[in-house]
Amino acid sequence: MNTVVVGGGVIGLATAWRAARRGVTVTVIDPAPATKASHVSAGMLPPGHEQLIGQEDLLRLCMTSRDLYPSFVAELEEFAPAGFRRDGVLDVAFDEDSMRSLERQRDLQESLGIRTRRLSPEECDAFQPGLAPVVGGLLSPDDGSIDPRVLNAALITAVEALGGTVVRRSVVRVGDHTVTLDDGDAVAFDRLVLAAGCWTHHIGGFPDGAVPEIRPVKGQVLRLHADPALLKVTTRAFAKGSSLYLVPRPDGELVIGSTYEERGYDEVATAEGISALIARAAKVIPGVGSLRFGEISAGLRPGSPDDLPVIGPTAVPDVYMASGHFRMGVQLAPVTAEGMAAYLTDTAPHASVVPFTPLRFSS
Amino acid sequence: MNTVVVGGGVIGLATAWRAARRGVTVTVIDPAPATKASHVSAGMLPPGHEQLIGQEDLLRLCMTSRDLYPSFVAELEEFAPAGFRRDGVLDVAFDEDSMRSLERQRDLQESLGIRTRRLSPEECDAFQPGLAPVVGGLLSPDDGSIDPRVLNAALITAVEALGGTVVRRSVVRVGDHTVTLDDGDAVAFDRLVLAAGCWTHHIGGFPDGAVPEIRPVKGQVLRLHADPALLKVTTRAFAKGSSLYLVPRPDGELVIGSTYEERGYDEVATAEGISALIARAAKVIPGVGSLRFGEISAGLRPGSPDDLPVIGPTAVPDVYMASGHFRMGVQLAPVTAEGMAAYLTDTAPHASVVPFTPLRFSS
Repeated sequence: MNTVVVGGGVIGLATAWRAARRGVTVTVIDPAPATKASHVSAGMLPPGHEQLIGQEDLLRLCMTSRDLYPSFVAELEEFAPAGFRRDGVLDVAFDEDSMRSLERQRDLQESLGIRTRRLSPEECDAFQPGLAPVVGGLLSPDDGSIDPRVLNAALITAVEALGGTVVRRSVVRVGDHTVTLDDGDAVAFDRLVLAAGCWTHHIGGFPDGAVPEIRPVKGQVLRLHADPALLKVTTRAFAKGSSLYLVPRPDGELVIGSTYEERGYDEVATAEGISALIARAAKVIPGVGSLRFGEISAGLRPGSPDDLPVIGPTAVPDVYMASGHFRMGVQLAPVTAEGMAAYLTDTAPHASVVPFTPLRFSS
Repeated sequence: MNTVVVGGGVIGLATAWRAARRGVTVTVIDPAPATKASHVSAGMLPPGHEQLIGQEDLLRLCMTSRDLYPSFVAELEEFAPAGFRRDGVLDVAFDEDSMRSLERQRDLQESLGIRTRRLSPEECDAFQPGLAPVVGGLLSPDDGSIDPRVLNAALITAVEALGGTVVRRSVVRVGDHTVTLDDGDAVAFDRLVLAAGCWTHHIGGFPDGAVPEIRPVKGQVLRLHADPALLKVTTRAFAKGSSLYLVPRPDGELVIGSTYEERGYDEVATAEGISALIARAAKVIPGVGSLRFGEISAGLRPGSPDDLPVIGPTAVPDVYMASGHFRMGVQLAPVTAEGMAAYLTDTAPHASVVPFTPLRFSS
């Protein structure tokens, strides 16, 4: 069984690794693996969000992925470090409306059995000195983050260690159990996984409408460096209906995201992107201005027609899809990879994955 | 005659080159040549500034350097491109006070025979579309800029082509006609040139007070990329007593400077440095926000005790100094290098250089 995975971001790589573990021969094809959306991502792994209320299917998918994360990481770390931290996520509200949202989030988390602690303004300040004055906060001590750059590197190592291949080329066209690369070479497959994010439907050769269109949603992310660390744990700040996240790394890097821009395939990191992120971060942690600049980068989040993930077999025989994870690619990598590996070995995927079938877009 | 030049910034390199051309054997010693203040500099070469009024000696030095620049570049370009542009400098005023300063600058320039044209707000807008509304402007069509990174690279090439040596080490101590390097090696000299900017007085072995202290004055400079170019020529914007400069390069790079920070040897490029430069630039050219981020860097300008350049023999026999150029290192490189080469070959330097003797600080 030779399975070709088109796309070497976190979804394609994680799928390839989990399939390889089940004995599938995998070939990942990507002109520049691990350099796009998941490379830019902060890798935040928060337990909940008010916006998940009422989104039962997505909530179940998130919770399954959260449950899978520790074992996913433990198995991956047999190959290389994965950059996983479960040292807490602190949510803080800067106005009363945001605090009410956090209270709904707390109710959600408690109903799911997720440890959650309501913090007073004083407790927020004591837990995380340097914060601007907040209305209140929520601490989820069992959640955290993963460094997607470390994760992606570990996944490539693991895929190759299990006999998989990473081919650094572009797929331009799909034929009958064959993909054609940009250098004219052909690669045969028994099964094909489309995991190329917003570039998925640029691959030629599919019948019209067989592959849902994945649109790019640009996000810019800023990396600063603090020595000593400015933040103790991953922090999300909610104010006036918008949110900002700040994810600290052990080496002092502080990842701050993100902008939200519908601009097609524009991947340019701009002056105003940096300015906006610094200005918003300075309202959360006034000391942020004096931090050393590290990097500004832009990624294209993959948005499906209903903004929900697309996981499973498509209408084209032997062609599968794993994309459309929007802001949640890193968070949903374990459940997606596990589900895809099940499909690719003709076993039943976890029930939480089933609603995300690509066939929901077929008329 | 073996002359050792300590410091491989634009002043040290230019001095070494001009001395080598006169037959002096030169050795430039720098742990990382062409990476400090002049590497960060925008390389603006404006004809005048209101602040030069009344500073007769400095004005004469600037004008001599301006006169030397074309032949300096022409001779250097026998070795490598120098990145010189004389396509104009546009000064614009955003308030009446600033406009009055520009008028004084125009009077100064006209008294010096420098071509200068007063522009109305409409003429500014026609000449440079995209500018925010101005009170008025001044165009100096015969002035421009040089890319200091291109210039420094050309100087290294020229020094080496003429038999000079660039040693990538630090000088830790000076003894009798010998410098000791950080690896313990000793290099003998007949004459020594101190051109290590604000690191000059970190070299041990000099009698107290023999070498004036050069302090670091931090400046952060932002590099964006515009395609097509946003600015036609080097532009200086004056508002509320402060100024900002924007220097375009042929490849679309736009260099924006600078901050002014007295923070010792701190060379950290910060979040607030970027924010401040972008915010100030957006008031001059509103379109700047959408430009691609290129680089933020910080340099330490060398400030002498009276903030004026220090050029010539010190009180220590056979030890010379070329430093303290503050914001003007790139602008004053030709006159400084020519003056130093004269001193090093026992000929008379240009009269404009004489007042900048290091001996003025001796009591």
